[in-house]
Amino acid sequence: MTKPSSDPKLFRVDMEPVGRRVEIGAETTLLGAAQMVGVGVVSLCGGEGWCESCRVQLVSGELSPPTPDEDNALTSNDIAAGYRLACQSFPRSHVKINIPPESLTAPQRLQVEGHAVSVELAPLITPVDITLPPPTLRDLRSDMTRLKDALIEENYEPVTCAMPVLEHLSDRLRAYDWTVRLALTQETQQAGHHIAAMLPAASSLFGLAVDIGTTKLAAYLLDLVTGETVAQTGAMNPQIMHGEDVISRIAYTDHHADGRHTLQRKLVETLNGMIRTLCEQASTLSEYIVMAVVVGNTAMHHLFTGLPVRQLAQAPYVPAVSQALRIRADEIGLQLAPGAVICLPPNIAGYVGADHVSMILATDIWQTDRTAVAVDIGTNTEITLASGGRLLSCSCASGPVFEGAHIRDGMRAAPGAVERVRIMEGKILTYTIANSPPVGICGSGILDAVAEMRAAGIVNTKGAIQRTHAHVRAGDNEHLEFLLVPAAETGHGRDVVVTHRDVNEIQLAKAAIRAGFDIVLDKAGTDIDDIDDFIIAGAFGTYIDIPNAIRVGMFPPLPLAKFRQIGNAAGMGAKRMLLSVDQLNTANAIARRVDYIELTTCPAFQTHFLNAMFL
Amino acid sequence: MTKPSSDPKLFRVDMEPVGRRVEIGAETTLLGAAQMVGVGVVSLCGGEGWCESCRVQLVSGELSPPTPDEDNALTSNDIAAGYRLACQSFPRSHVKINIPPESLTAPQRLQVEGHAVSVELAPLITPVDITLPPPTLRDLRSDMTRLKDALIEENYEPVTCAMPVLEHLSDRLRAYDWTVRLALTQETQQAGHHIAAMLPAASSLFGLAVDIGTTKLAAYLLDLVTGETVAQTGAMNPQIMHGEDVISRIAYTDHHADGRHTLQRKLVETLNGMIRTLCEQASTLSEYIVMAVVVGNTAMHHLFTGLPVRQLAQAPYVPAVSQALRIRADEIGLQLAPGAVICLPPNIAGYVGADHVSMILATDIWQTDRTAVAVDIGTNTEITLASGGRLLSCSCASGPVFEGAHIRDGMRAAPGAVERVRIMEGKILTYTIANSPPVGICGSGILDAVAEMRAAGIVNTKGAIQRTHAHVRAGDNEHLEFLLVPAAETGHGRDVVVTHRDVNEIQLAKAAIRAGFDIVLDKAGTDIDDIDDFIIAGAFGTYIDIPNAIRVGMFPPLPLAKFRQIGNAAGMGAKRMLLSVDQLNTANAIARRVDYIELTTCPAFQTHFLNAMFL
Repeated sequence: MTKPSSDPKLFRVDMEPVGRRVEIGAETTLLGAAQMVGVGVVSLCGGEGWCESCRVQLVSGELSPPTPDEDNALTSNDIAAGYRLACQSFPRSHVKINIPPESLTAPQRLQVEGHAVSVELAPLITPVDITLPPPTLRDLRSDMTRLKDALIEENYEPVTCAMPVLEHLSDRLRAYDWTVRLALTQETQQAGHHIAAMLPAASSLFGLAVDIGTTKLAAYLLDLVTGETVAQTGAMNPQIMHGEDVISRIAYTDHHADGRHTLQRKLVETLNGMIRTLCEQASTLSEYIVMAVVVGNTAMHHLFTGLPVRQLAQAPYVPAVSQALRIRADEIGLQLAPGAVICLPPNIAGYVGADHVSMILATDIWQTDRTAVAVDIGTNTEITLASGGRLLSCSCASGPVFEGAHIRDGMRAAPGAVERVRIMEGKILTYTIANSPPVGICGSGILDAVAEMRAAGIVNTKGAIQRTHAHVRAGDNEHLEFLLVPAAETGHGRDVVVTHRDVNEIQLAKAAIRAGFDIVLDKAGTDIDDIDDFIIAGAFGTYIDIPNAIRVGMFPPLPLAKFRQIGNAAGMGAKRMLLSVDQLNTANAIARRVDYIELTTCPAFQTHFLNAMFL
Repeated sequence: MTKPSSDPKLFRVDMEPVGRRVEIGAETTLLGAAQMVGVGVVSLCGGEGWCESCRVQLVSGELSPPTPDEDNALTSNDIAAGYRLACQSFPRSHVKINIPPESLTAPQRLQVEGHAVSVELAPLITPVDITLPPPTLRDLRSDMTRLKDALIEENYEPVTCAMPVLEHLSDRLRAYDWTVRLALTQETQQAGHHIAAMLPAASSLFGLAVDIGTTKLAAYLLDLVTGETVAQTGAMNPQIMHGEDVISRIAYTDHHADGRHTLQRKLVETLNGMIRTLCEQASTLSEYIVMAVVVGNTAMHHLFTGLPVRQLAQAPYVPAVSQALRIRADEIGLQLAPGAVICLPPNIAGYVGADHVSMILATDIWQTDRTAVAVDIGTNTEITLASGGRLLSCSCASGPVFEGAHIRDGMRAAPGAVERVRIMEGKILTYTIANSPPVGICGSGILDAVAEMRAAGIVNTKGAIQRTHAHVRAGDNEHLEFLLVPAAETGHGRDVVVTHRDVNEIQLAKAAIRAGFDIVLDKAGTDIDDIDDFIIAGAFGTYIDIPNAIRVGMFPPLPLAKFRQIGNAAGMGAKRMLLSVDQLNTANAIARRVDYIELTTCPAFQTHFLNAMFL
């Protein structure tokens, strides 16, 4: 899907995780390339090579050999791992580079907010304080037996103990003088209680809620005793450098020995960094985090837990595991209390994962009497309809266009991205993230642009650009294109345009979503006008302009009052499950209740899809 | 307990794992030191430094710097890890060296035999063959749900699946075309079934039985379908280089950061080597080994599983865990099927471990109507008395003398060790292991020597050597010593003697054992003459001369027909538990039934001990 370079002397530079792409000659440095497209790379020395602030990592392709300045600035390990100084490196082929967070002047826009949690506080793991009689020559019970006996007296039975807790049991009981606070699971079934951590008396207990997106990660630290969210942070998913979407990451695991574990390790490393950040914010230590709830789509869920993903790319696309899982933090190297329990809610299908279950939980549509739709827009868009006590879900392959990919001047939601477009009486108004000079267009911007172009008559219903505006001109191969921001007004001195092809990409994406929505409605026998609530979750969904989404036909023409943009509902659901074992059980019940509709087996899908292509 | 060097220019060389010690000057190589005391180190080039066969590892102390020959022969990693060529290294201080198995010309004598197993074949894990319908677009169940549903149809419910099995589930189901053999636990309780491995249809399933001794390891590979023992092997416990006995290893973990995990890692590495040997013998692969039963004393049990041991060296010496444990092979890095279940039978007390439970199981004394004693002699000697339906156990600190330690010319049971002594009409006859020229005395040899010296009147009842034989002479500090083998007849050209102090060491050890026995008998109200069976287990116990053990007073004067030497009963019990879940459960029942007697709390112990000192 990549446009080949028309000039043989130009090399393409793909910049991750920001998702910007530019073509440069062999005499332009990577730093120059970033500056051309408005990607802010830190450069304290102004490109002279003596500071180390512009470190980037080569992912694929070939660069000029390291200069003496780089040999000074970087260790041999760094160089072996592909690290370079952007100001000293020139392309020798098309290259893909990873710009680490510390080298970026402005962070990506990451969504970690989401509405407040309001559930009754009864987490899976709660503190149990206990004092034991020390052993004597007349009381030679082992440490574990002594502890179990004391717990039986408090009516906790049977009790199991994580191996990492056992490993410290004897030392800690003595260090804490036989008075300890246990982090103990409160099971509703007869599964017994589990000791996840042994801490000093009166310790705080924290829980971690994580939403693993294909592109972005969000993590929240909650106090399990007060229910308060004490810290939150976001990061890019580091797996991006090995594939922008789920399918290319699965391909990576197929083509690289141990690729699955590479992706797992990178993800876990980044999450561990986020855990350190959270602990600093909350002035605590990771060993007090005794539980986590982790949600993600099925592929992210499998890559996080170390499960195989190959079968997700082979018809009929089934998960390895759909049931809820519990694993121990130390099993995958997540730096919490070593015996901490990681709860993974169930997946529904290969492309409707635990994150969608979490979203259904957080929106409460699983228990509503109303007719409600909940949509999470991304590379795959999941839709659930609650109607007459039923829950119907499907997944639409909407593609990465809303992440800014496959768009000529597309980019992710970072400073300088056009996120709003208005065409009023022929005048083009653009609004960028952080009010920076425009350098590209992010998902909500391109959707806006196409909708406004349609309203202004610049594209017709079939998506063809018309010569009805002074900014329409001939572009590549004489295809018409629309000049959104002229070079003089941009941050990098190059035109930002919307091409014929960009319009088609939006048509394909919005048609996939609308066709999925129509089929779910058909299957439920529900009419559009019956819908009481239309809930839009997820990062992109928060920034979308609803009237324009209706105008292009992505959403049905409902009164605006019926729409709700709720932010990161998956993360919100994870928080709920962290604070309430009842919510964890509800997630299991939701996954069992959902009727999953596999669109590829619906004969009506193609018809709906083609109808939905019109603007 | 180490005799200080009398000559300041002599350096002591401790050789592990053979347990030999010699003093040499600064001009003698380590190879020369080994040759002086008859330790066969491979030396293909005869000490010229160009072959690499005499590799040894420095454990402590200082050697001469590496020679150019060593720089050629060894990698820098080798040198960093303390590896040296014995023919090129001279002592600069007292040193301890480890001679790896490949550098030894003759193996240690390791006991892996033991009587045949005769239990009804019903192992914890058995094969379950199952064929699944492949997924289709109309049957989108996840792979795990599909498998569970099929197992429910066969009445296996609930089923859990080890994470390492889940990790391969999807790939294997497809690779094996949806027909697989599962290794499934057959639980008697409502604990549910557990999938330990997924293998091709009709695969063999194997189980591993391991006895972890403080000094020696024994491992057996059993076919879980036929019950046959298909391979067996032995090795030295590699932890020896960090301490000969349990107490010094616990001290090592206290004095070295991460020492506990170092000891665990070394043990697991050696066991993995043994597993490879077993698999080669049986022409199979480790992924077909789906279960293991591992026994050892409490300290070995804790060090194997990664549990803390410090509290075992602090009064009142309680285990971290006494209950039976189950862990997964991958949790500690044991190279079996990754989801294989490792069963660890319960410990009774800090110094009566799962190996003794296993021995009680194997000897059947837990279900006898007879009055029976079972003894496992080692650095700690465990004694159990079965009498009138009761089981009473104690642990005696007999010390490492029977391993050849703390004896002037002591050594472990390796070629050249004197293992039998007869003094007939003043003539001294010695018999060595492998009929090699004598170079030292092992446990059974020193016991024999003392008994024969007593019978010949060379020592009196108090253990003092008498000038009643031509071979009695003045030794160090004018103490009398007994020349057992003159230099001319030994393999290293130096006298092999029994010192006054050696006799005392035997007195202390045998008195500890006898006092423990007497107290157990007292507590049970049983008379010596009531004893029907006196069972001696363990490596040393197999080679012991019973009449001489009675003569020195270590064992009570019972008719010889009542004694049975049964070899490695702990390993035998482990095999039984591998083949029968009922035997695993019986082990739990045995541990609960045993009345443990802590000798340090018995006021009568000192009296018994002093009485038992007489020869």
